[in-house]
Amino acid sequence: MSAAEEMAIRAVVAEWIAASRRGDAQAVLNLVTDDVLFLQPGHEPMDRAAFEAASRVQSSRKLQIDVDSDIREIQVEGDMAFLWSKLAVTVTPAEGSAVRREGHTLTIFRKRDGRWLLARDANMLVQR
Amino acid sequence: MSAAEEMAIRAVVAEWIAASRRGDAQAVLNLVTDDVLFLQPGHEPMDRAAFEAASRVQSSRKLQIDVDSDIREIQVEGDMAFLWSKLAVTVTPAEGSAVRREGHTLTIFRKRDGRWLLARDANMLVQR
Repeated sequence: MSAAEEMAIRAVVAEWIAASRRGDAQAVLNLVTDDVLFLQPGHEPMDRAAFEAASRVQSSRKLQIDVDSDIREIQVEGDMAFLWSKLAVTVTPAEGSAVRREGHTLTIFRKRDGRWLLARDANMLVQR
Repeated sequence: MSAAEEMAIRAVVAEWIAASRRGDAQAVLNLVTDDVLFLQPGHEPMDRAAFEAASRVQSSRKLQIDVDSDIREIQVEGDMAFLWSKLAVTVTPAEGSAVRREGHTLTIFRKRDGRWLLARDANMLVQR
């Protein structure tokens, strides 16, 4: 049972990475809860509207995003789960040089209407 | 029911802050799971043994720790809960000037033998 939930959450992460790679902001938005919050060092929490705006800018600027995700742990309890991973994100602009950021993430997922969605995300990536 | 669990988790946070203030490393260790992991930018995950060593150094160096915690949200599901907060930590050495760090945390708690313990912690504080 828990193994099936874990596989469903891994599938959401894989879908997220694929959607990011092809710059599909709407597909990424379909994977987060309405009350999603993104936390990161030195910034105010980013809600769904702010995340949507940032995703569309990224998409319109044709930034190439490559994500290398190493999921280190998933634990599931009812409709709540957490996942932490080692992540490397490389952003390459149409012109200019690529920026690579690496580090850990801690993410909360919530099951809504049978689907696992990203609900809270702590991003601890730093530039390398 | 959930409100009672939330209050129990708030009590753990209050106990953590009080123990940190008085430099009581053992009391802090009593509030974390055996498999606890502390995640932060630019560092490898810190396990219980590494955290214990760091706490004892802090304690022996008589660093004065002041914590200002603003819990923004707690959600509980069975034996799992998450909490995020806005935190400010000021560390004052016996000699030298204080260092203040501010930012958000995202923390996973697990209920073990009827007690809520800190299990995973994402620390996004930056120096101010």
